[in-house]
Amino acid sequence: MGSNRPKVVIVGAGFAGLYAARALAKQAVDVLIIDRKNHHTFQPLLYQVALAVLSPAEIASPIRAIFKRNKNVTVMLGEVTDFDLANKTVLIKDDDGHKDEPIHYDYLILAAGAGNFYFGHPEWEQYAPGLKSIEDALEIRRRVLNAFERAERHAATQGSHEPLNFVVIGGGPTGVELAGSIADIARIVMAEDFRAIDPSMARILLLEGGPRVLASYPEDLSQAALKQLEELGVEVRTQTMVTDIGAMSVTMKHVGNENAQLEIIPAAVAIWGAGVAPSPLGKKIAALSGAQTDRAGRVVVEKDLTLPGHPEVFVTGDLVAFTNPDGKVVPGVAPAAIQMGGYAGRAIAADLAQRTRTPFHYWDKGSLATIGRSRAVGDLPGIHLTGFFAWLAWLLIHVMFLVGFSNRFMVMMEWAWAYFFYRGGARLITDKH
Amino acid sequence: MGSNRPKVVIVGAGFAGLYAARALAKQAVDVLIIDRKNHHTFQPLLYQVALAVLSPAEIASPIRAIFKRNKNVTVMLGEVTDFDLANKTVLIKDDDGHKDEPIHYDYLILAAGAGNFYFGHPEWEQYAPGLKSIEDALEIRRRVLNAFERAERHAATQGSHEPLNFVVIGGGPTGVELAGSIADIARIVMAEDFRAIDPSMARILLLEGGPRVLASYPEDLSQAALKQLEELGVEVRTQTMVTDIGAMSVTMKHVGNENAQLEIIPAAVAIWGAGVAPSPLGKKIAALSGAQTDRAGRVVVEKDLTLPGHPEVFVTGDLVAFTNPDGKVVPGVAPAAIQMGGYAGRAIAADLAQRTRTPFHYWDKGSLATIGRSRAVGDLPGIHLTGFFAWLAWLLIHVMFLVGFSNRFMVMMEWAWAYFFYRGGARLITDKH
Repeated sequence: MGSNRPKVVIVGAGFAGLYAARALAKQAVDVLIIDRKNHHTFQPLLYQVALAVLSPAEIASPIRAIFKRNKNVTVMLGEVTDFDLANKTVLIKDDDGHKDEPIHYDYLILAAGAGNFYFGHPEWEQYAPGLKSIEDALEIRRRVLNAFERAERHAATQGSHEPLNFVVIGGGPTGVELAGSIADIARIVMAEDFRAIDPSMARILLLEGGPRVLASYPEDLSQAALKQLEELGVEVRTQTMVTDIGAMSVTMKHVGNENAQLEIIPAAVAIWGAGVAPSPLGKKIAALSGAQTDRAGRVVVEKDLTLPGHPEVFVTGDLVAFTNPDGKVVPGVAPAAIQMGGYAGRAIAADLAQRTRTPFHYWDKGSLATIGRSRAVGDLPGIHLTGFFAWLAWLLIHVMFLVGFSNRFMVMMEWAWAYFFYRGGARLITDKH
Repeated sequence: MGSNRPKVVIVGAGFAGLYAARALAKQAVDVLIIDRKNHHTFQPLLYQVALAVLSPAEIASPIRAIFKRNKNVTVMLGEVTDFDLANKTVLIKDDDGHKDEPIHYDYLILAAGAGNFYFGHPEWEQYAPGLKSIEDALEIRRRVLNAFERAERHAATQGSHEPLNFVVIGGGPTGVELAGSIADIARIVMAEDFRAIDPSMARILLLEGGPRVLASYPEDLSQAALKQLEELGVEVRTQTMVTDIGAMSVTMKHVGNENAQLEIIPAAVAIWGAGVAPSPLGKKIAALSGAQTDRAGRVVVEKDLTLPGHPEVFVTGDLVAFTNPDGKVVPGVAPAAIQMGGYAGRAIAADLAQRTRTPFHYWDKGSLATIGRSRAVGDLPGIHLTGFFAWLAWLLIHVMFLVGFSNRFMVMMEWAWAYFFYRGGARLITDKH
């Protein structure tokens, strides 16, 4: 408030925004974080909220709580709608109809993240929600649990029920996690809860357009993931394109075979894990500055992650198209967002100390994808892990990584409890109103 | 399914329904619990979810999980819409448009509970939600937290904010709990989270139409509660009737003074704790059977809680008008619902054993009302407690009482954590969609 220190505005409190603010929390700057939500969401564990293993509060933390001891960090709940690069202001939209108030910055870090992308079919979203927010996770939970409830009710009152098919679209890490977890829950947790139906008869289909699941992983790990999914009873269909999604069905086609018939499968629940698109704020700021965007709408930035011609504007995380010095394109994953956010914060600190910015470089520490309750694959430097040990590595890394979440200890307890007692955790259906 | 054992249908899984099912879980009957929600809600702690101290899963438990080991208990998610007393069936409404399927019973236990009652002003509900369900609690949480966020945003961008007034309507136990907790949270938890506003400047008003708060308690405890509320900074206004509620204001009038002016107070958040009404299913079943209802719509039942002329139909909990043998009217509180539900279950067991039913008798073990983080009043047999020791008694009783909640231990941990570290717990705003 009214200090003479440089003002850094951070748009978005995902991993990139959070780590940018952390890097600046001890610097002689005033930081303002603007987000549409009041909480940071630990996205790698969202699927556990969707499948009722964890509660929202266990993987989300109020942004204010994270920075309450950093008096130079201010948080504002609001939606950024536009930028004025010449006057160095952002416009925000209030939820209560007040007129937009321009907010000044000396530095801007754009970290607005990505949303679901339905390949030109936004009407599919209502039938197949994606998994980007706590609200998404609770909506998927509602649909999955209600599907079991409906089948039980129809079996009890009518003697039969519609097929209990769960269709997960997209064989990337999110789709694999969701499909594996639904299988686990249907076969273990739900089995003893129901009387008229046999939840373990649920069919879980995982549809992937390409030739293999986890396409970003080495081929042997894709094979290992496929095997583990099949052990859990998941039907994996590769080279399968979704052509339509309706209220209770998914239509698909085998690719590579011109004569393949369309196949319609009844779907008690369909979940979208097939595509994400960067926030439209990326395209907007690119258009204002004349920067390029790639086909997906990501902003092409300078070597220091800034907008061409605007060394005071950083673009980070899922909004950015960046090629590492080694020629590899930086993937849209949490570690990349974390590294980019931290880099932007440190670059500003370097400016203040009148040091030269070094170029950004993504350090790939490897990746892990989990498959159900005790299976995973890991592509780590020098080693490929599969099965239980990969899962253990995944668990340790994710638990230890719940940075700044004061309930880290509680999450560990909850997990241990759920793991050893096969408990279903937070199996509540809450209504939308 | 198709057994020859008597079938007991329980409508509602609140305290009465839950304890009825427990009493029947080891009997030679088939029990079917029908509820509109998939979970039992521990209503005495709902206000802690509303004020973001606890998460929904910590005070709600899936009904199926509670009875998973009782293979004679079946659970159905659905809404009962009508009864056929002659043919002994209930009708349910499906959420998915299927036609109603009559469900047969040999015994019926109606335990549908109560909802909010706005004294003929249902339009007030949108502006002043009550606190009867997890959804209500999350809506109140959203409004309370958003009020602080809005004030912070306006203070930062416009230099001032609208009054941060929280108006709680109704000075019964729910209103007292809510007002005391909002005061605690504003002064302790929120104080370090905000930069531009001082949350401790929030005004908390508690409006009560009668001459004192906690009118059902002895007068000395009402006085003690008043004193504790005032210590917390709550402005208590007794003999104050609400005459209108708008989007951002509450209009009130001092009663007993014909010349009193209407007073309009801006309200960032208004919360309703002033009145409840029994489920309309009570009136419906009374009309079908010719039973009387009292002015509030509660069913007048026989000494064994059954509908006159229908010894196979029990009406329990908040749906019932019952006068104890000692002449006292049984209050609409959790212990009464628990005792009635358990009684109905045991009466059916007595029938099966060809024993005579004994009349129902409510055993008043006393009552406790909590006021913020460490204050309470207790009206216990032979002793009146106030302050910290009353609160300790309240805490112990409620924690020990989380029957069948497998996360009882977790709740204790969470509370201890919140208590010793003044943590705000689950301070998440989730959207309605």
